[in-house]
Amino acid sequence: MSVKTIEDKAFSMIEGGICAAKGIRAGGVNCGLNPDPKKFDLAMFVSDTDCEAAAVYTQNKVKGAPILVTQKHLAKNGGKVRAVIANSKNANTCNADGEEKAERMCELAAKALGLKPEEVAVASTGVIGETLPLEPIESHMDALTADLTYDGGGRAEYAIMTTDTVAKEVAVEFTLDGKVCHLGGMAKGSGMIHPNMATTLNFITTDAAISAELLQQMLSELVKITYNCLSVDGDTSTNDMILVMANGLAGNARITSDEGHPHKVEENPSTGYGMVYKALWLVLVNLTRMLAADGEGAGKLVTCQVKGAKDQDSAIAVARSIISSSLVKCAIFGADANSGRIMCALGYADADVDVAKVDIDLSSEAGRMPAYRNGFAQAFDEDYAKGILSCEEIEILLDLHDGDGEATAWGCDMTYDYVKINGDYRS
Amino acid sequence: MSVKTIEDKAFSMIEGGICAAKGIRAGGVNCGLNPDPKKFDLAMFVSDTDCEAAAVYTQNKVKGAPILVTQKHLAKNGGKVRAVIANSKNANTCNADGEEKAERMCELAAKALGLKPEEVAVASTGVIGETLPLEPIESHMDALTADLTYDGGGRAEYAIMTTDTVAKEVAVEFTLDGKVCHLGGMAKGSGMIHPNMATTLNFITTDAAISAELLQQMLSELVKITYNCLSVDGDTSTNDMILVMANGLAGNARITSDEGHPHKVEENPSTGYGMVYKALWLVLVNLTRMLAADGEGAGKLVTCQVKGAKDQDSAIAVARSIISSSLVKCAIFGADANSGRIMCALGYADADVDVAKVDIDLSSEAGRMPAYRNGFAQAFDEDYAKGILSCEEIEILLDLHDGDGEATAWGCDMTYDYVKINGDYRS
Repeated sequence: MSVKTIEDKAFSMIEGGICAAKGIRAGGVNCGLNPDPKKFDLAMFVSDTDCEAAAVYTQNKVKGAPILVTQKHLAKNGGKVRAVIANSKNANTCNADGEEKAERMCELAAKALGLKPEEVAVASTGVIGETLPLEPIESHMDALTADLTYDGGGRAEYAIMTTDTVAKEVAVEFTLDGKVCHLGGMAKGSGMIHPNMATTLNFITTDAAISAELLQQMLSELVKITYNCLSVDGDTSTNDMILVMANGLAGNARITSDEGHPHKVEENPSTGYGMVYKALWLVLVNLTRMLAADGEGAGKLVTCQVKGAKDQDSAIAVARSIISSSLVKCAIFGADANSGRIMCALGYADADVDVAKVDIDLSSEAGRMPAYRNGFAQAFDEDYAKGILSCEEIEILLDLHDGDGEATAWGCDMTYDYVKINGDYRS
Repeated sequence: MSVKTIEDKAFSMIEGGICAAKGIRAGGVNCGLNPDPKKFDLAMFVSDTDCEAAAVYTQNKVKGAPILVTQKHLAKNGGKVRAVIANSKNANTCNADGEEKAERMCELAAKALGLKPEEVAVASTGVIGETLPLEPIESHMDALTADLTYDGGGRAEYAIMTTDTVAKEVAVEFTLDGKVCHLGGMAKGSGMIHPNMATTLNFITTDAAISAELLQQMLSELVKITYNCLSVDGDTSTNDMILVMANGLAGNARITSDEGHPHKVEENPSTGYGMVYKALWLVLVNLTRMLAADGEGAGKLVTCQVKGAKDQDSAIAVARSIISSSLVKCAIFGADANSGRIMCALGYADADVDVAKVDIDLSSEAGRMPAYRNGFAQAFDEDYAKGILSCEEIEILLDLHDGDGEATAWGCDMTYDYVKINGDYRS
């Protein structure tokens, strides 16, 4: 899958994920939650210094115990975080002893790292409603701590992956006040992903100095146009979070004003706030694309771009509705240009749309074809359409000719493998 | 699949579908829209006398041309209908000449039956956005008219079926004013079925005499707790309608008052209005169950019963959310008791729920097991759970312990075949 870059020489995409930022040690081990000894299941990372932090959490009313404990710790520690411990294979959710065990995981990490428990955030992902055994975690804390290195982001990422088939790490480099700064992140998918939620486990670090308040403001804004425009299967997890941590080790002047807030995210930034905003967007949008492309059983990345909507919210509603349609997803799996299903999904989107003005194109590296004009189906060549829809990245492009609202949503096709993976997930 | 009956000797389930009512002739032929000459694709039925009519239509903003024409005809003809013409294989939707052709279908039927075009309703189902060829329909009107008989409901049903694997017909018999009355219907599914819509093509006839206004009132009420609680794939068609026609040939005194409106639909009715209300519910709820059980690729009927909700709307929201969850549907396909997914789907339902009070049971003819109590997962025997979930009808039972709101929703499992059918639907 291609990485989304931008025409802006002020940013370069780099390696390193969460360890791209200075002063972040990370690692991962197999502690035995996963019976496969080669698959890591326990991750930890820690910053050399205190981090200002921002987070968004799942909006599901059933919240995993780790979410509740992390929220509590951030509040208790004045919005700051030093370290994160996370496990896969068990969500530690809907268990009577869930919070107690999530607290205990933080205590174990704090003890190993010489921190206070409230300086540690915790996350779990996996099966809901199975009791989390603590013994494997406790007995592997020494090994995990010994594994921490300044380039260990990939090992931590491997430990939080579940049905993910590829690692998801992105990082960018940019300069503030003559200081080289880094912002990077990692994510795990890959089912139970749907808009309106923080969605999936996501950890982002930066060595830029910025106030927690501004970090939270930009995270909340950017999640709306990235993670909240992502759908794999219409389900929404109980345990999802995005945690952003800024340790300031790059040495720039701490950003305390949102002066230079961009009008459009693509524009070239003119202030420190604008630079971090754009860097965070680049990381979030690329993780979003990676999560969509690696949706459970996914064979294709599907992007729906809507322009000409009455406003941004309408554009988001339409783009999300189309990307979430099981029938659209199946048609793309089959490379079947059944574009009426796109019109249909547009028609039940919660948005004010004049269906008589709608233009739809299907596009990929194999070409671009008009599918609908003014709400009516257009004649097309079946072979040409099949060629377009047989590529790995498919774009559905809509112009609603009714305003200047724009949005993009990301999803994937629906395949036999999605059903297979989820028919027997717990084994 | 079992037919849902009730403890009420005033009603008996009978054969005949739309022809159970007196004075309804129906038929179906293959006119060539479907290349398989054995599969019918054109249906017609007509009442010997005028019918008072009620209808609900898809809420999709993209509406099929037949919907628009049917609405127009009902308005023009004072809410009355005599006949219906319907085709499968082509939805006649999103085509520039769609309304013109839907009008023409009504003219053809009217001419063949000696009626005015506005006395005819029209429906189409199939691929969206392909031009409907009229020649096959025109050239088969004589054959279709010749095919009409007073027991031809099954032939009409066969003509509107698309990916349906079984015919869906239900009828009941009851007595009003000493006169034997009948109310029966037919439906076609089986994908693109989701709440908030009339959903699918559905035709219901009765020989009871009742005012169109009261018929509309009871239809709108009953759709809320039957068809609108049905989900196959979360998609909502552009062409769905339920049309109910009452010709009064049973000879009862025409019902013009809603005296005796039931508090609960199950209670034994005490008035004519109550009798027709219950008969219509029996037909709608059984068609709903048949549509769910025959969802595209479905192997199992899944029923979710919610009680103890704050109110009925909350109960409906929770039941619909669970039944619509792709992950719940996949788990049931795999007979995997991953009940955390039920809690998860409850958690993102648009309803005010105290998750700490939730009890969930899984049930089928193989047994019943507690899965959650007070929001926490319960230990269970894997083999016993697998046995329960391996049956053809699965019940998910929730008690929210927070009020007296109740609702039931119907859906099906998600299977490889769903993806297969919809990856190449147009062929």
